[in-house]
Amino acid sequence: MAEFTHLVVVKFKEEVVVEDIIKGLEKLVFEVDTVKSFVWGNDIESMEMLRQGFTHALMMTFGSKDDFNAFQAHPNHVEYSATFSAAIEKIVLLDFPVVAIKPMPT
Amino acid sequence: MAEFTHLVVVKFKEEVVVEDIIKGLEKLVFEVDTVKSFVWGNDIESMEMLRQGFTHALMMTFGSKDDFNAFQAHPNHVEYSATFSAAIEKIVLLDFPVVAIKPMPT
Repeated sequence: MAEFTHLVVVKFKEEVVVEDIIKGLEKLVFEVDTVKSFVWGNDIESMEMLRQGFTHALMMTFGSKDDFNAFQAHPNHVEYSATFSAAIEKIVLLDFPVVAIKPMPT
Repeated sequence: MAEFTHLVVVKFKEEVVVEDIIKGLEKLVFEVDTVKSFVWGNDIESMEMLRQGFTHALMMTFGSKDDFNAFQAHPNHVEYSATFSAAIEKIVLLDFPVVAIKPMPT
């Protein structure tokens, strides 16, 4: 079964301490076993016109859509979602099965 | 040195055959050696309110920012960018060094 990715592109509110949000997510992804990987980044390169005010990308991968659903329903995720939502100025969120064209070497 | 990610979130124009765009990208990532991985996906899950009309995510990773710069400057990339740009209705693009919190098992 294809891996499943939960992708969040976000601009946080100005007063938000992004490190605190990341720490909360770090705690969450280790609490929930079905999260296979979690990586994030702060855009430093793209043109403002293309970035459109978004500053951070957060990506979680799961072994399957079922594993993703288990994460979504997990009480710790539900709880942290409230904190995360309150920190957001704008967001784009995509959930999709991953199609790997040129896979990472393993 | 941290890996570097080139992330594109996009809505293609209605008349675009997405498979053709992906085929072009597939060709490109095998032509340019510095592209370490390329995965993509078509959102099937998120709420329309959060997806905001975007439908596809495309992610390329590179071993370093220098490798990403080499890709950006590669003539095949420059050439394909024109085709890609013409297919886009809207786009968000982020380029960032990857911070891995819970890495994929290797």
